[in-house]
Amino acid sequence: MIFQDENAFDIGEKIKKTPCAILPIGAVEAHGPHLPLGTDNVLAERLARRLAERTESFVLPTLPYGQVWSLQNFPGSISVSNEALIRMLYDIGESLYRQGLRIYVMLNGHLGNAVALKEAARLLYKDYPELKVYYFFYPGSKQAIERVRETTSSHSSYFHACELETSYMLYLAGEYVNMDKALDDTPNIGVEADCTPTPWEEFTTTAVLGNAALATKEKGKEVIEATLNTMTAMIEGAKQRLQYGKEQ
Amino acid sequence: MIFQDENAFDIGEKIKKTPCAILPIGAVEAHGPHLPLGTDNVLAERLARRLAERTESFVLPTLPYGQVWSLQNFPGSISVSNEALIRMLYDIGESLYRQGLRIYVMLNGHLGNAVALKEAARLLYKDYPELKVYYFFYPGSKQAIERVRETTSSHSSYFHACELETSYMLYLAGEYVNMDKALDDTPNIGVEADCTPTPWEEFTTTAVLGNAALATKEKGKEVIEATLNTMTAMIEGAKQRLQYGKEQ
Amino acid sequence: MIFQDENAFDIGEKIKKTPCAILPIGAVEAHGPHLPLGTDNVLAERLARRLAERTESFVLPTLPYGQVWSLQNFPGSISVSNEALIRMLYDIGESLYRQGLRIYVMLNGHLGNAVALKEAARLLYKDYPELKVYYFFYPGSKQAIERVRETTSSHSSYFHACELETSYMLYLAGEYVNMDKALDDTPNIGVEADCTPTPWEEFTTTAVLGNAALATKEKGKEVIEATLNTMTAMIEGAKQRLQYGKEQ
Amino acid sequence: MIFQDENAFDIGEKIKKTPCAILPIGAVEAHGPHLPLGTDNVLAERLARRLAERTESFVLPTLPYGQVWSLQNFPGSISVSNEALIRMLYDIGESLYRQGLRIYVMLNGHLGNAVALKEAARLLYKDYPELKVYYFFYPGSKQAIERVRETTSSHSSYFHACELETSYMLYLAGEYVNMDKALDDTPNIGVEADCTPTPWEEFTTTAVLGNAALATKEKGKEVIEATLNTMTAMIEGAKQRLQYGKEQ
Amino acid sequence: MIFQDENAFDIGEKIKKTPCAILPIGAVEAHGPHLPLGTDNVLAERLARRLAERTESFVLPTLPYGQVWSLQNFPGSISVSNEALIRMLYDIGESLYRQGLRIYVMLNGHLGNAVALKEAARLLYKDYPELKVYYFFYPGSKQAIERVRETTSSHSSYFHACELETSYMLYLAGEYVNMDKALDDTPNIGVEADCTPTPWEEFTTTAVLGNAALATKEKGKEVIEATLNTMTAMIEGAKQRLQYGKEQ
Amino acid sequence: MIFQDENAFDIGEKIKKTPCAILPIGAVEAHGPHLPLGTDNVLAERLARRLAERTESFVLPTLPYGQVWSLQNFPGSISVSNEALIRMLYDIGESLYRQGLRIYVMLNGHLGNAVALKEAARLLYKDYPELKVYYFFYPGSKQAIERVRETTSSHSSYFHACELETSYMLYLAGEYVNMDKALDDTPNIGVEADCTPTPWEEFTTTAVLGNAALATKEKGKEVIEATLNTMTAMIEGAKQRLQYGKEQ
Repeated sequence: MIFQDENAFDIGEKIKKTPCAILPIGAVEAHGPHLPLGTDNVLAERLARRLAERTESFVLPTLPYGQVWSLQNFPGSISVSNEALIRMLYDIGESLYRQGLRIYVMLNGHLGNAVALKEAARLLYKDYPELKVYYFFYPGSKQAIERVRETTSSHSSYFHACELETSYMLYLAGEYVNMDKALDDTPNIGVEADCTPTPWEEFTTTAVLGNAALATKEKGKEVIEATLNTMTAMIEGAKQRLQYGKEQ
Repeated sequence: MIFQDENAFDIGEKIKKTPCAILPIGAVEAHGPHLPLGTDNVLAERLARRLAERTESFVLPTLPYGQVWSLQNFPGSISVSNEALIRMLYDIGESLYRQGLRIYVMLNGHLGNAVALKEAARLLYKDYPELKVYYFFYPGSKQAIERVRETTSSHSSYFHACELETSYMLYLAGEYVNMDKALDDTPNIGVEADCTPTPWEEFTTTAVLGNAALATKEKGKEVIEATLNTMTAMIEGAKQRLQYGKEQ
Repeated sequence: MIFQDENAFDIGEKIKKTPCAILPIGAVEAHGPHLPLGTDNVLAERLARRLAERTESFVLPTLPYGQVWSLQNFPGSISVSNEALIRMLYDIGESLYRQGLRIYVMLNGHLGNAVALKEAARLLYKDYPELKVYYFFYPGSKQAIERVRETTSSHSSYFHACELETSYMLYLAGEYVNMDKALDDTPNIGVEADCTPTPWEEFTTTAVLGNAALATKEKGKEVIEATLNTMTAMIEGAKQRLQYGKEQ
Repeated sequence: MIFQDENAFDIGEKIKKTPCAILPIGAVEAHGPHLPLGTDNVLAERLARRLAERTESFVLPTLPYGQVWSLQNFPGSISVSNEALIRMLYDIGESLYRQGLRIYVMLNGHLGNAVALKEAARLLYKDYPELKVYYFFYPGSKQAIERVRETTSSHSSYFHACELETSYMLYLAGEYVNMDKALDDTPNIGVEADCTPTPWEEFTTTAVLGNAALATKEKGKEVIEATLNTMTAMIEGAKQRLQYGKEQ
Repeated sequence: MIFQDENAFDIGEKIKKTPCAILPIGAVEAHGPHLPLGTDNVLAERLARRLAERTESFVLPTLPYGQVWSLQNFPGSISVSNEALIRMLYDIGESLYRQGLRIYVMLNGHLGNAVALKEAARLLYKDYPELKVYYFFYPGSKQAIERVRETTSSHSSYFHACELETSYMLYLAGEYVNMDKALDDTPNIGVEADCTPTPWEEFTTTAVLGNAALATKEKGKEVIEATLNTMTAMIEGAKQRLQYGKEQ
Repeated sequence: MIFQDENAFDIGEKIKKTPCAILPIGAVEAHGPHLPLGTDNVLAERLARRLAERTESFVLPTLPYGQVWSLQNFPGSISVSNEALIRMLYDIGESLYRQGLRIYVMLNGHLGNAVALKEAARLLYKDYPELKVYYFFYPGSKQAIERVRETTSSHSSYFHACELETSYMLYLAGEYVNMDKALDDTPNIGVEADCTPTPWEEFTTTAVLGNAALATKEKGKEVIEATLNTMTAMIEGAKQRLQYGKEQ
């Protein structure tokens, strides 16, 4: 069900049976010494494959460039603008709709993309109301996180290259993780960072927001399986509503 | 030298020695029954890896969505606008420049992207004159093509899912080709197609422009090696000019 | 210190002593039967005046139109696009900078404006790094909220025409509140609302998210004073850094 | 009939009876020593309220930022671009239309906004032909002005902080006027000012274009009542055409 | 001194002596039965040639498409948007500046272009302050018009295919005028036309605003010579200021 | 059949019989010492007139400004952006469609405009599918060129101020050619010029790409008549399809 491995002669029939396509989207961004720059891409892609298996969906090729404002000055980060992202995500959605797909899942591995994804989804909602668009950034993982996390979070919504994200990688793509280099670096992020533009070099030199050394595959499994369940349920619900719409 | 597999602690030093980054860019597009929708992505990515090896460059993650106006109505095609592409390619170039890279190669596997690549390169040329930007679409392959081609071309600049492109795939990514399904379908494309908007369904039902059955790995090798030589020479020249600039 | 009540002959001297200008920004939006459509404007304006008194700042005229996507289909809502907001907020900031002001506070009374405010702030940060830009949406109020709130929240980040917002109004602008009409209407907002475009008519008919009848002036006072303290501290810090910069 | 003081439960019924909404729009701009920076906002708002009373219309919250190119370098001026204004005025009109309003009056107190208002009106005219859009800048006042004016005008279309505008303020908002500081400063504005970009500091240091000391409340009354009559007649005509349309 | 008739080997030297280039800009628009659709282009071009002779300037090729909102529904009218015009006028100015020209005269034959010309001039003023930009629409002609006009004007700022414009054509390009068909059609244009989008078909079927039959070559000469004098004086002043700047 | 020489009273009837309008578009650009800066405009206009005669079409006024990136630094060149061109060409097409024309021919004399023309045509194709849009740059001339050319081309797609273009001018507008100054200057343009932004000053000082001295009127005639035949055939085909559509 890798979309781009299909051929044009067969894909039409397959789309009729498979209304849902999942777009992994991540970023190239500093993730400390123990994780690769492409961590968010790897996570999005691996999650997408698992979600596609559970929901009989297509996996689209990964869009590997994201909005990396906060870490743009760290070595290796590549950032694209919200405008570029919104337009590209919209255009992809429009093509999917014309191809007959009816559920478009943007599976996001990078928090910085959230604004662009939501905006693209709203634009598509207006122009193509029959296309159901999701933007997923680990939905339904809150309780699992509370269960597994040993450290408190540096910030109410940021997590980065930390106990959590490293655990996700250990579970989904352990071959990319070098736990020998996993740091414990929990910065103090003041309330001001939520109220004024604050590149992360103002509070961290490592881009690690927590104790990565506490990461385990098991923690990753618990959170990832929880979010997979949540996402699966939403997609299955959407598929049933589609089916119901057809039957009427 | 896969850029996104590097980590942020090491990448800075590596960039100092390796000034060149290669961005593969392709498309998801109908390529007949014997080639996958992602053919242009696969070709761009494989070529990029070979070119990177020869020139000690980084390979960036593939940008897998392109401008697919002509084939947008064929099953499986996904098209994004020139505007989205230009902006994203520009933003990536800007980030590369800030990271210290000085040669940005857009290695293109899809002709429809050519306008966007050239425009993005011109914008970067104006704003970042110290960044050398290349847009490559099989440069220097003309003579090799003339040597290997058994059929005449359907069109002066288009080639698609044909003897040539299928040969490239056989050489670079044979595991994606199903030669049993390779068609011979050479449409008659009139001069009007170059003078008025002409979606390809007006002259082909297969999206194959020629006799794909004549493709061989050897033909592919001859053309691909020729273009690799040409691209390598350009990059090496650019690297030497950088070096010369530093020594002065 | 109402900026627009000053005259052009005196304002130049005053700006030299008063580097900070506060822009209240709200929206016209449905707020149930007990609060006016302009609730967010009233709150932003009243808060701005108190903050200005504490910090010796100017209060700019209120920008009374905001992004009201979620409630745009409710009676009385007026929505403007992120693009319009971003551009206007940027332009205002640019003028303030040219006028000699160095701290630009966007005091926001409407959550839907948050994306635009942050984006405008980032654009100004890039182009006018000497202008400190804040976007405030009740910062530092979390603990006070936890102390006063009797009901659980309908949603992790939304609050609207509820126990909290009604309490803020009772404290800051009680003359606009009609407690006789205050409803208890706590909708069940599923996780899906955070993952797909969800206009609020899908889960509420009143636009009240909670039990407004529990609102009191005292609760409002506790939260509002907490956020005023937080905002005051940030502005005073910024003023001191300005002063320190001048002295060096 | 202050729109934002209404609540969402009642507004729907009221809109059915009251099809017209008036948006005051002004600017923050230098107006000499005797008038406040917000003069254009005050005038627009006061005029709007009188016009609303006469025509049973809603008054929307004032949009207090305008295009102030000519005086942007004077102390206290805040300027926003035509693009920002056009987009915001358009978006407001679109929302009003969706809310069921059918007459949208942009009551302008600042000449510099005229281009943006006209352009926004034309865009709405194309997209929402059923929405009648007016842009008013003292229409029908010419004869009254000729009657009351004691001095000749500095310029064929500019008037600013002068005998006229000060008179309007004395009539509509005398509490903001300090006649003790009213200057007589009539610059010589050459024909070139209409043919090349000419910021006003090239011909005035006060931003007063005439003899403000000659202003009286009576002069203001004569002009303001004349323009109120003209505007009232237009709105009443539009309302009757709406009524006629419904009856057919 | 026709710019495009020069060749690239000589033009550089000539520009050093001739700092001023005149761009005629008009429109294709209904002008009644006695004048051609291209009247505004013809007038702009003929005026430009005379002005160039008087001021030793270059005449650039005519930009023959303008903003024709008001008459867009009349037979033969072609309208382009303000956006297209502004961008093109700006780009031309930028090129002229880079070529070494220092005075850029937009000689306008069509009132509908006025907004775009002024906006383009302001943008250039900001980005290229050393480039003097003029936008001319019959400047300095008011008194001459009052002397020659036998009829009152239909509107305070519109004149179209009438006694005046026909007289200009008789003087500058009589071969295009068919006086046998000249109509007397003076519409009643109410004050509302200045306050709401009003395509001209609402008040005229001929697009003639006045008594064209009263046009004479002599009237045309008087007005045209007056405006030529005014324009010449401005350009000569600008040239002297350039010279003075060089000498310092 | 000069469109702008028609008047508004007659044009409506004529359009009913004449569905095709031809827009000449060129550029102001360096063309060596023997050809004027306006060469591309002259060629486009003369070709358009001949084509109009053969096909009973209207000739629209020439759009004389084009995208001149490659030669923008040569004396006399004036360049406008693709954005400006695309928008203007689109707007003109939209007006033509509303006027009842059904075939819109953009007759291009300057290769640099090709991207903008194609993009404008595609936009119109989407929004006005009933409007047939052509973009012509010497279509069908390849074989005639091979017959007449005595020298090999400097580049696979560029020709400029050379044997060919000079021959076209000798045939269509000989009065603008000064053969005494015709140069032989055949630069060596490497493959890199097609792969990276390369302003032409990098390989030529004359902007002549070949041996202009070999130009003859006869060569010009052979190529021009060939392309006129090709263009005529396409337009006649389109006219017949229109007719057929009406008859059905």
